[in-house]
Amino acid sequence: MSIRMTTSETAAWLDERDNYLIITHRRPDGDTIGCAGALVQGLREAGKTAYILNNPEITPRYLRFVENYWAPDGYEPEYTISVDIASCDLFTENAMVYKDHVSLCIDHHPSNTLYAKTTCLVDASATCGEIIYDILIALSGSISAKSAESLYVAVTTDTGCFAYANTTSNTLRTASLLIEAGAPSAALNKMLFRTKTQQRIQVEGIIYTNLEFYYGGKVAIATITKETMEFANAIEDDVDDIASLPMVVQGVLAGITIREMTSAQDCKVSVRTATPVNAHAISENFGGGGHAMAAGFTIKKTIPEIKEALLETLRNHLPKT
Amino acid sequence: MSIRMTTSETAAWLDERDNYLIITHRRPDGDTIGCAGALVQGLREAGKTAYILNNPEITPRYLRFVENYWAPDGYEPEYTISVDIASCDLFTENAMVYKDHVSLCIDHHPSNTLYAKTTCLVDASATCGEIIYDILIALSGSISAKSAESLYVAVTTDTGCFAYANTTSNTLRTASLLIEAGAPSAALNKMLFRTKTQQRIQVEGIIYTNLEFYYGGKVAIATITKETMEFANAIEDDVDDIASLPMVVQGVLAGITIREMTSAQDCKVSVRTATPVNAHAISENFGGGGHAMAAGFTIKKTIPEIKEALLETLRNHLPKT
Repeated sequence: MSIRMTTSETAAWLDERDNYLIITHRRPDGDTIGCAGALVQGLREAGKTAYILNNPEITPRYLRFVENYWAPDGYEPEYTISVDIASCDLFTENAMVYKDHVSLCIDHHPSNTLYAKTTCLVDASATCGEIIYDILIALSGSISAKSAESLYVAVTTDTGCFAYANTTSNTLRTASLLIEAGAPSAALNKMLFRTKTQQRIQVEGIIYTNLEFYYGGKVAIATITKETMEFANAIEDDVDDIASLPMVVQGVLAGITIREMTSAQDCKVSVRTATPVNAHAISENFGGGGHAMAAGFTIKKTIPEIKEALLETLRNHLPKT
Repeated sequence: MSIRMTTSETAAWLDERDNYLIITHRRPDGDTIGCAGALVQGLREAGKTAYILNNPEITPRYLRFVENYWAPDGYEPEYTISVDIASCDLFTENAMVYKDHVSLCIDHHPSNTLYAKTTCLVDASATCGEIIYDILIALSGSISAKSAESLYVAVTTDTGCFAYANTTSNTLRTASLLIEAGAPSAALNKMLFRTKTQQRIQVEGIIYTNLEFYYGGKVAIATITKETMEFANAIEDDVDDIASLPMVVQGVLAGITIREMTSAQDCKVSVRTATPVNAHAISENFGGGGHAMAAGFTIKKTIPEIKEALLETLRNHLPKT
């Protein structure tokens, strides 16, 4: 069983030890990367030796926040720290060697499996970044501009720049303090939330002009064929989080995105919903699952077949009025 | 000359008087409406009689925050208060009768003409909402959930939900306190920033798929013809702030939106730029103007003629490298 620690106990724990290696999760997002960047920097400022384990799945967008901290070959840490990682399944291949003896896990996911020897879990926190902020303040009394920059990435990316429903007053309070500490918020916002590639714009344009509505506008279906991806010259990075698009349309309770993968008979379906429609329940019907508002499944059928089956299933999940 | 007051002096001024009428600006946005809604509510909670002058240009999006406070016919205020209004030109027609004797102006625009008898101007503030917050706290020591809701609209709409470059640490600090006071931030964010009409989606789709790039991607030109508006069944509300779209494309320094108005020879051109390109200087060439990053002009030419003339002008405004 994992020993649970508060943020101030975690700060004391970090203060008493040295020689750290920080681990980030598969398909790294801004929260895990921002937390790692801020923590490694904060630990070094506190006089510690600390590195981040190279994450082979990192995207160009987040590379600059961590690349100078990658652990050199042969670095032998005394303590390993995972950030924003709910379970060992989410470790990258090169982190698997550490999975049975993680010294400390710092996380905000309610689903955390308590796999580490000690755990600082604040599941009311919208972002892991807010927890790291409290730990660094408890450790050093203040936060440097460099750590603040990384943490600003963490708190904004996990909350859609404070627009998602998970955002709390503490998220905004922390972000406010990060700007005071020197986080270049305007430049980061522009880069993270107000810049799209030409390819992304093309894909969004095609999705928007071809969006189909059913059941009086309660359901919106977007399709992304291989042809669309080729026409737009788009890569995976260009369609990140694209499944959230159909849900922005007024009145839509279920936003479906059907993505053609390797062939016309191999599709990935993303289901996003608003109360009272349950995305997990819909996806379960097709052997998939997820969360109440965001779920999905893969299916070996053509796009018209999938639409037909989905519309049949959706009929039973939509509110009657 | 206008007497200048701090926020606490303004609170004392309000406390000493009674019978207020609050005035909002032409083409009302969330800041002027949110400020009016919060101030009228806060004044009533402090035992005052206060109303908002009916704004005939209000859009459905903001109506519910103010409609219960419209001044009844025959209401005779002792004091008039303008919120978020830089000059009398921005008064609605029905407010023009008050323009020469506004008792108090609360504003954040550096360009404020000091037209009121007394002025509380905090030009470092990203939003007028933050100023009203400070005044209401100084007046009553706390803020009700109802006022907090209106002020949350004010601070988010003027900062693009905290993503625009004008957002400061104080904006986020205030928003954090508004959530603590009961502002339903998740529902408001969904309504204001994560909901688009089907018509808006259609227009965006057409713009995105037809966006033209010039000068190695430094210039993006979007065109909105009357045909597009009709095809999408769009009204004015559906294309609000649409001129900001071309600027989201990576690498674009000048984002131009050409909108066909009453005829093919009557166009409105919006120019949005990033440093070092000056939107005002470009627009001046065509008899228009505005700010360094956002300007525009109207022109009696066809779309192909406008494009040619603009591209010629832009050549001299783009950085050489």
